[in-house]
Amino acid sequence: MGYGTIGSGVAEILRVNRDVIAKRAGEPLELKYVLDLREFKGDPVEHLIVHDYETIVNDPEVDIVVETMGGVEPAYTFVKAMLEKGKHVTTSNKALVAEKGAELIRIAREHKVNFLFEASVGGGIPIIRPLLSSLTGDVVEEITGIVNGTTNYMLTKMAKEGSDFDEVLKEAQANGYAEKDPTADVEGHDACRKIAILTSLVCGQQVDYRDIPTEGITKISATDIKYANALGKVIKLLARSKKVGDTYVCRVAPYLLGPSHPLHHVDDVFNAIFVHGNMFGDGMFYGSGAGKLPTASAVVGDMVAMAKHIDKNIYLEWEEEPLILSNPNQQENTFFVRTGASKEEIEAAFYHVEYVDAGIPDEIGFITVKMTEADFARKLESVTDVRQTLRLAD
Amino acid sequence: MGYGTIGSGVAEILRVNRDVIAKRAGEPLELKYVLDLREFKGDPVEHLIVHDYETIVNDPEVDIVVETMGGVEPAYTFVKAMLEKGKHVTTSNKALVAEKGAELIRIAREHKVNFLFEASVGGGIPIIRPLLSSLTGDVVEEITGIVNGTTNYMLTKMAKEGSDFDEVLKEAQANGYAEKDPTADVEGHDACRKIAILTSLVCGQQVDYRDIPTEGITKISATDIKYANALGKVIKLLARSKKVGDTYVCRVAPYLLGPSHPLHHVDDVFNAIFVHGNMFGDGMFYGSGAGKLPTASAVVGDMVAMAKHIDKNIYLEWEEEPLILSNPNQQENTFFVRTGASKEEIEAAFYHVEYVDAGIPDEIGFITVKMTEADFARKLESVTDVRQTLRLAD
Repeated sequence: MGYGTIGSGVAEILRVNRDVIAKRAGEPLELKYVLDLREFKGDPVEHLIVHDYETIVNDPEVDIVVETMGGVEPAYTFVKAMLEKGKHVTTSNKALVAEKGAELIRIAREHKVNFLFEASVGGGIPIIRPLLSSLTGDVVEEITGIVNGTTNYMLTKMAKEGSDFDEVLKEAQANGYAEKDPTADVEGHDACRKIAILTSLVCGQQVDYRDIPTEGITKISATDIKYANALGKVIKLLARSKKVGDTYVCRVAPYLLGPSHPLHHVDDVFNAIFVHGNMFGDGMFYGSGAGKLPTASAVVGDMVAMAKHIDKNIYLEWEEEPLILSNPNQQENTFFVRTGASKEEIEAAFYHVEYVDAGIPDEIGFITVKMTEADFARKLESVTDVRQTLRLAD
Repeated sequence: MGYGTIGSGVAEILRVNRDVIAKRAGEPLELKYVLDLREFKGDPVEHLIVHDYETIVNDPEVDIVVETMGGVEPAYTFVKAMLEKGKHVTTSNKALVAEKGAELIRIAREHKVNFLFEASVGGGIPIIRPLLSSLTGDVVEEITGIVNGTTNYMLTKMAKEGSDFDEVLKEAQANGYAEKDPTADVEGHDACRKIAILTSLVCGQQVDYRDIPTEGITKISATDIKYANALGKVIKLLARSKKVGDTYVCRVAPYLLGPSHPLHHVDDVFNAIFVHGNMFGDGMFYGSGAGKLPTASAVVGDMVAMAKHIDKNIYLEWEEEPLILSNPNQQENTFFVRTGASKEEIEAAFYHVEYVDAGIPDEIGFITVKMTEADFARKLESVTDVRQTLRLAD
């Protein structure tokens, strides 16, 4: 369902790697229908195109359905109908999974089929299956990801060229790395849904992405990059989740990362997800977080898994019960600030700070000691002319 | 079976993470016996110790067996007996898996149980399950791993301190990072078995580790590190496997890696495995490649998977049919050479070379163009006083 970039990638993989896929799935995976509003004259799937999802719902020969349309509706209605008819579904649609994941998992379980979504986070990178079926002996205490390729490409370009956000955005749009309406990427909404999904999977409950404080990269400037260079750090858009007692605290924001951080070297459109387990220790999964074939590769991996479990629901621990996230204002961080205020004013507010000299006239950059978000916000109120605040990733 | 570092780590994880493990496995995992020659007075498992593996073989209550003894025998005899009695087995023992993997997988299949071995490669890093159950839509065209923590720790230390192999080995032995007899690690035998296992898994046939040309790091000197620095590269022990036609070419050797290589920043005891799939593109799995709890975490992950598939064999595509590896002498590489010979002599043999100045008196370092191993060996014969040869990783 959906013959756009990822959907057509799935069809391509099923063609090109047909034999190895058949061997691993136990039988060939045959593409029977392609649901799309368009016609695709001359495309290899031209004769498979249908426009009504009920054609697929009502065909008992269809065992596995791929949803790559994106957006909550009509994807939700279609996917639900497929599961209720006893068809397995895999999706690359993070909006759908973040919003309706727990419910669709329950419906799949009730109908002894599977609802899988490896491609919804990290594109081709295996992250959902490792969390669900490899790190099962662990309590996952932290997930920190660079999970949006567009913003990572832009930040890498800004760091290399010392350019401003607007300039790089135009370039990224011109060469297809950013969409015409880049809001979901650059404002962090995409990363927010992805960290909500990963947190739901490790806690087994429904995390509401609306509860996650989310900042994008639109305010990052060439001046910020200069300070990052002076600090020997880079700026990355991180989606973070940390265990606090029986729950998690989540945040999406640009952070300053030092060279020893495992995500420091993740550049361009690559994605990577850092995971800390209480037994496993530190690990990282790195790869193509977007793009036609890598993302479609994750979808096809799910299709093979479903073909191998055609009569069996693979139990996923993600219940509909909501998880109350820990108060993000109580989270402790170290902060970087740029201001036109005087050292006296800064020290009156923050007492101990570490100044950062990036050679920028008429302003001061400094780093605070570790403090809660609430404490930082309160102290910052008495500093005039604040031009930027960023968090440091530890 | 085996209550050493990893075995005791498994017992610890089953205690500490008991509740989450029970939730994910569907029921608690209860430790019934610990097979070891020793007694472990005062240890929490003291009352579970048995000395005869037949006690376990003959107890119908035992569903899952963990083997962490190491070595081919008696592990092979014990594991085979367990599988034949319909018990699932997971092992961390790469020697056993490299030698007997295909056979034990067949025996498990015949008895409708599972033989899993996630911990045998990359310690805690999920690599075997992602290859077997996530990258199933791909043809894996390359696997390149830093899969030995001891040698990576030593090479990192040599690079940082500019010290020689012997010096760092003594230090590594003193603080427990290297064994008293370090041969298996420093001569590359351990890495060789691991790349044989990974190659077997992606081709589905039995790779004989004896067919893989294997060099260790014993000949790496402080002078080599100086040349690496001059080149802006690092020296890493890589275990590599690349698809060539219908087979693979494998090698274990120290390589020079530039800063853009995904494994360049993998330091200390960390391991990482780079994978290239024809659809997935480039990916990397990074984490603790050794150590008690990370490795035990992988074992427990297998135990949970087996508990969830207690009546079902998870099909693994690794047949006993041997794979004839591609001739390693036909593999193309770029080579670095240190020699006391003159430029005239070097250029007479190699024609085009790139000289490397590391400020070392009375010798010349140079890099060749890309050529086959056979061609390189033939040309090198006419160069006198060769002091080192290393390959460059592309």
